[in-house]
Amino acid sequence: MNRYSYLDHLECSRCGSSHEAGTVQSVCACGAPLLARYDLEALAEVCRPADLTARPASLWRYHELLPVSSEAGVISLGEAVTPTLRLPRLGEEMGLERLSLKDEGLLPTGTFKARGAAVGVSRARELGVTRIAMPTNGNAGAAWAAYGARAGIECLIVMPQDAPRVPRAECAIAGARLYLVDGHIGDAGAMVAEAIATQGYADASTLREPYRIEGKKTMGLELFEQLGWRAPDTILYPAGGGVGLIGIHKALRECQQLGWMSSRSPRMVAVQASGCAPVVKAWESGAAACEPWPEPATAAFGIKVPKPLGDFLILDALRSTDGCAVAVTDPEILSAQAELAGMEGLYICPEGAACIAAARNLRGSGWLHPDEEVVVINTGAGTLYSRLLREHPPVLPKGARIPAL
Amino acid sequence: MNRYSYLDHLECSRCGSSHEAGTVQSVCACGAPLLARYDLEALAEVCRPADLTARPASLWRYHELLPVSSEAGVISLGEAVTPTLRLPRLGEEMGLERLSLKDEGLLPTGTFKARGAAVGVSRARELGVTRIAMPTNGNAGAAWAAYGARAGIECLIVMPQDAPRVPRAECAIAGARLYLVDGHIGDAGAMVAEAIATQGYADASTLREPYRIEGKKTMGLELFEQLGWRAPDTILYPAGGGVGLIGIHKALRECQQLGWMSSRSPRMVAVQASGCAPVVKAWESGAAACEPWPEPATAAFGIKVPKPLGDFLILDALRSTDGCAVAVTDPEILSAQAELAGMEGLYICPEGAACIAAARNLRGSGWLHPDEEVVVINTGAGTLYSRLLREHPPVLPKGARIPAL
Repeated sequence: MNRYSYLDHLECSRCGSSHEAGTVQSVCACGAPLLARYDLEALAEVCRPADLTARPASLWRYHELLPVSSEAGVISLGEAVTPTLRLPRLGEEMGLERLSLKDEGLLPTGTFKARGAAVGVSRARELGVTRIAMPTNGNAGAAWAAYGARAGIECLIVMPQDAPRVPRAECAIAGARLYLVDGHIGDAGAMVAEAIATQGYADASTLREPYRIEGKKTMGLELFEQLGWRAPDTILYPAGGGVGLIGIHKALRECQQLGWMSSRSPRMVAVQASGCAPVVKAWESGAAACEPWPEPATAAFGIKVPKPLGDFLILDALRSTDGCAVAVTDPEILSAQAELAGMEGLYICPEGAACIAAARNLRGSGWLHPDEEVVVINTGAGTLYSRLLREHPPVLPKGARIPAL
Repeated sequence: MNRYSYLDHLECSRCGSSHEAGTVQSVCACGAPLLARYDLEALAEVCRPADLTARPASLWRYHELLPVSSEAGVISLGEAVTPTLRLPRLGEEMGLERLSLKDEGLLPTGTFKARGAAVGVSRARELGVTRIAMPTNGNAGAAWAAYGARAGIECLIVMPQDAPRVPRAECAIAGARLYLVDGHIGDAGAMVAEAIATQGYADASTLREPYRIEGKKTMGLELFEQLGWRAPDTILYPAGGGVGLIGIHKALRECQQLGWMSSRSPRMVAVQASGCAPVVKAWESGAAACEPWPEPATAAFGIKVPKPLGDFLILDALRSTDGCAVAVTDPEILSAQAELAGMEGLYICPEGAACIAAARNLRGSGWLHPDEEVVVINTGAGTLYSRLLREHPPVLPKGARIPAL
């Protein structure tokens, strides 16, 4: 009988050392993230893409490439396959004939963070974890708090005081232990590290547990399957911690090793905000890792990460796919958000809108060609950020006439 | 070749008169809503439930039972089939062994209103409509504004000044003409009626155009298919305008006429807030229609409808299925919302939470049996209503220790 999961072991992303996958792990002794490795040879023999077609339209359709060892271990809030939508009018206006958007705002809790939380929490519970802790810019905390509640796992969440308000409410109502810190996500991370060391929480910080990225990887698997097991020419991704980008790249390599896809890679583009662009700075200088960004500031709060732990993996994904890293300004982000909503009806989060703005700039510079297939990853719903808008609709008294245009 | 849609004509829900489906229609001359009628005999001959299994997991999988005449006419923002999730812990605590929730918060714009807008806007565009107008408590306006933008249809939206803030932002960013009124949705409706008469908008008000309900109907189709073309014992639905309930009931009857389902009906329950319960009042007094509720007041804003146009259709659905209508208080609603989030990780809207509260009360009264299959319809995401929460997480300075529990 085929296995539900073909997880084999964990491998250090820097030193390559092997680690047991059957127990709770964090990072390697060398400090780098651990990546899940699967028995792809065995899987290739028993499973072909066509075998997936009849399965339910959820991320669990890729269960062989996920770490959860049985269906009984799945903690779900209903993670449907997210749509990849053509943007014909905006694309025409921008000079990109084949522009699409994968809308992750339709996942539980309203962001792509649900993927990492669904898989990470399921695996944590399977391994016997009862308490987890993590720093967050908001949305990851909201997702882990929700899936944690569903799984009966206690969550300690620390987020910056100036983080968006909605994820606060999500954490609170799910019953998480929630603290705010007068600082950025790096400061929250240091405090969480101390709590982990002294209070017995499992570390669920970005890339400090090995399975969140496996959930994020399914963004890539879904996209490739939606295109008929084919990669688009270019993928634009808003990079904070960068796990989604690393995950999509990992999905690509696994599909190629499985023989499910050709060796052709999409160009991977990391999009950042000009007020917090450590990856762009490292990319432009040819550095192998990032310097911490001194005073991070952007309305795209989810990508306000001054020093991603997986920086070298992000940079490697960009380099090995002939991609690039670009920054856009907050005014460009907010303008792209409004433009997309007005032209296509999609109200997306500022992080996703950063990628729309970047696509426009990259088309302007000639880096993107008019006829190439470009996919933008929108990581969350715009409704989570409605406080960014300052609409002032006219107020009429009862019975008043609505003015003619 | 099979037709994409088996729409045949429109029928008055009160006087039974027949109306042409190929032109823009509003209500019957007698004032009652028009309902879409399909050539179910012809459809039954060419389509069986098994023929649907391989189709994409979106509401358009039921296209034969929808009014849009070709796939090219579909305006989509990615309406995935929404999950029906078991609530094992909350169910156990409430004494309902088989309690589930269909989570409509995962649709575009965050509510079930996307169903009505997707189908209503698609059909409107197909019929040549370029401008629509509607009153709304918020979420329907947000959905129609979004789909309207996607379709290139101008939207005039009027909502109460005290409506939730998020849908305002959604309407504004989608480019709708948005007005607030110092009154309730009935007041907004009167002003929209005037604008329709004088400014040439098509009427998209609840049940004043015949196709929104066809979109809502797919909630029922999805649920029945998810259960293996079978109805649960009981469905609880938060009734404002009541279109979803009427739609689910219509779906049931169509599936029965098609021979896709048995003649057994689920008991349909209309849930209202005690501060605005015209349907409950009519139900309890045995009346055939509602009296306008004098001073509507509830935190569950979406069901704050003082006099639904389709009241007699709602009451008929309750009667003909041995259902009932019940009201719950705002404190019961907010408490059910928190309880569900804490026990199952689902942060739902107050309207959906009203149904959870109602299920508890109906179990307490013995109306619901411990072992019956109960499905609650959650009509939207809790994140759209985060301002209802008053969380005050502790704020720590950078570098502070997180207190031990």
